[in-house]
Amino acid sequence: MYDTIIIGGSVAGSSAAIYLKRRGVNFLITGKDIGGEMALVGLIENYPGIPSITGIELAKKFKEHLEKYKIEPRIATVSEIKKDEDIFIVNGVNIAEKTKSVIIASGSKPKKLNVPGENEFNRKGVSYCSICDGPLFSGKPVAIVGGANAALESGLMMSKLSSKVYVLTINNELWGDEVLIKELEKKNNVEIITSVFTHEIFGDKFVKGLKYLDKKDNKLKEISVEGIFIYIGMDPSTDFIPDEWGIKNQLKEIIIDKLGKTSVLGIFAAGDATDIPFKQMGIAVGQGITAALSTINYLDSKI
Amino acid sequence: MYDTIIIGGSVAGSSAAIYLKRRGVNFLITGKDIGGEMALVGLIENYPGIPSITGIELAKKFKEHLEKYKIEPRIATVSEIKKDEDIFIVNGVNIAEKTKSVIIASGSKPKKLNVPGENEFNRKGVSYCSICDGPLFSGKPVAIVGGANAALESGLMMSKLSSKVYVLTINNELWGDEVLIKELEKKNNVEIITSVFTHEIFGDKFVKGLKYLDKKDNKLKEISVEGIFIYIGMDPSTDFIPDEWGIKNQLKEIIIDKLGKTSVLGIFAAGDATDIPFKQMGIAVGQGITAALSTINYLDSKI
Repeated sequence: MYDTIIIGGSVAGSSAAIYLKRRGVNFLITGKDIGGEMALVGLIENYPGIPSITGIELAKKFKEHLEKYKIEPRIATVSEIKKDEDIFIVNGVNIAEKTKSVIIASGSKPKKLNVPGENEFNRKGVSYCSICDGPLFSGKPVAIVGGANAALESGLMMSKLSSKVYVLTINNELWGDEVLIKELEKKNNVEIITSVFTHEIFGDKFVKGLKYLDKKDNKLKEISVEGIFIYIGMDPSTDFIPDEWGIKNQLKEIIIDKLGKTSVLGIFAAGDATDIPFKQMGIAVGQGITAALSTINYLDSKI
Repeated sequence: MYDTIIIGGSVAGSSAAIYLKRRGVNFLITGKDIGGEMALVGLIENYPGIPSITGIELAKKFKEHLEKYKIEPRIATVSEIKKDEDIFIVNGVNIAEKTKSVIIASGSKPKKLNVPGENEFNRKGVSYCSICDGPLFSGKPVAIVGGANAALESGLMMSKLSSKVYVLTINNELWGDEVLIKELEKKNNVEIITSVFTHEIFGDKFVKGLKYLDKKDNKLKEISVEGIFIYIGMDPSTDFIPDEWGIKNQLKEIIIDKLGKTSVLGIFAAGDATDIPFKQMGIAVGQGITAALSTINYLDSKI
């Protein structure tokens, strides 16, 4: 039996693993791929202490860091966690283990529009993170697809950087926080287009524009933009957590306190799968370390 | 008037600054020294993504990161924050500024024993952080000075690494969490010595031992150790925060929620000055970013 199983091998999970190993905890770290999501990011210029690095290079550095501590992640897909008294059973493809505690760092994936061009122009103008990639589009026209808070915040952010910002929503009005909507409506360079079905993303080497069906007059229209930020929601990878534990919010994010604890004793969480609204690498690192140290305190207090 | 003033130029403050700058916020970052505390740490092997680096080198990297974004910190000592409606006034040596919000990242300092040898052997065996420096003393005898939770946790940690661990407390018993005390008492290689006045730390190039006055028989005694961890409390640098705001706990730490907010609207905090019990660089980075993004949301929601 393990003291801890870390589910997820990206930023938060790896950070937790480094701390657990340094403290001599008997643990397993497991994920679908290790450092994989990090490698998908383009140029990273907001990981404090590393002024500029590509996602691929940074993923390599994390891998090196794990290797330095002889941490060998197991590639596995967790499909179920069960609780048996104060022991947990983690099951899935390539995993069936018992553990005294679990750190869930399974991350999340942005929802896709599923339209032509979306995959083709991914990281060639199409992005799911304006905090990460926004500065690349300074002075250029962009579109935000989505109408809730994340899209509005992205729109507000981009209005300060871009020449022109289109905010496209499928609904007949924006439905985020009133204050954000009002603020957005005040911006001279923001155009809000409602009742939109995104139809296609087009370009050559990079994005050149977006076609949409205007539901108001049922006509296909297009706008010229160089960047498209898709904010139609995130899907936390938390399906394997029993709903009856009551530790997930309505977005399926894991509800944690500031020490990375959930309301189930022995279950900790970190990173993008949690209910911290800011999905940032530097934050996931801090959360991973916090969850690891909380887990150690939990294990120390148990016997 | 600034949108935000960051008080503190070490890890948390610098991380916040990078995010604020990327988002075009009009802010000032100020501190007694910039990156200073980081530079005091020896070898850092637990900052995820950087397998091994000296504190001095990492401080340089943070400085480079700030320079990349043309962030110029102001050297100043804040002595007072005042609130005037929803505006804050930050006063001190070399500073007298107004701002819409404040991010407090002023850090903390470990309390010193103030005995001969303590300064001389600092980082030559004397340490104030076993999570940081503990692994350097694998297989070697160490002493922990202190009797509360931080000392007990340090003792538990070092009992797994060191050949012998002395835990010295000034009181006639340990006074941390019962579970931690019981756990510590079970360890074969831990010796708890109560009613101790630490008298002197001695050595040649590195620490060789510690002399203490045993209050029980009033005799001067000594133990041979290569590492001495001093855990007699931390002093958060928060004196400039008005007590009547009610945002400090009894340890003078700033009480934050998981988004880095305090109970005073417009006042955010991050890093070692907060009530997060784990004082770690990677955590301070995450907290700095979190506070910056919460501050931006606050500013966006204001007008």
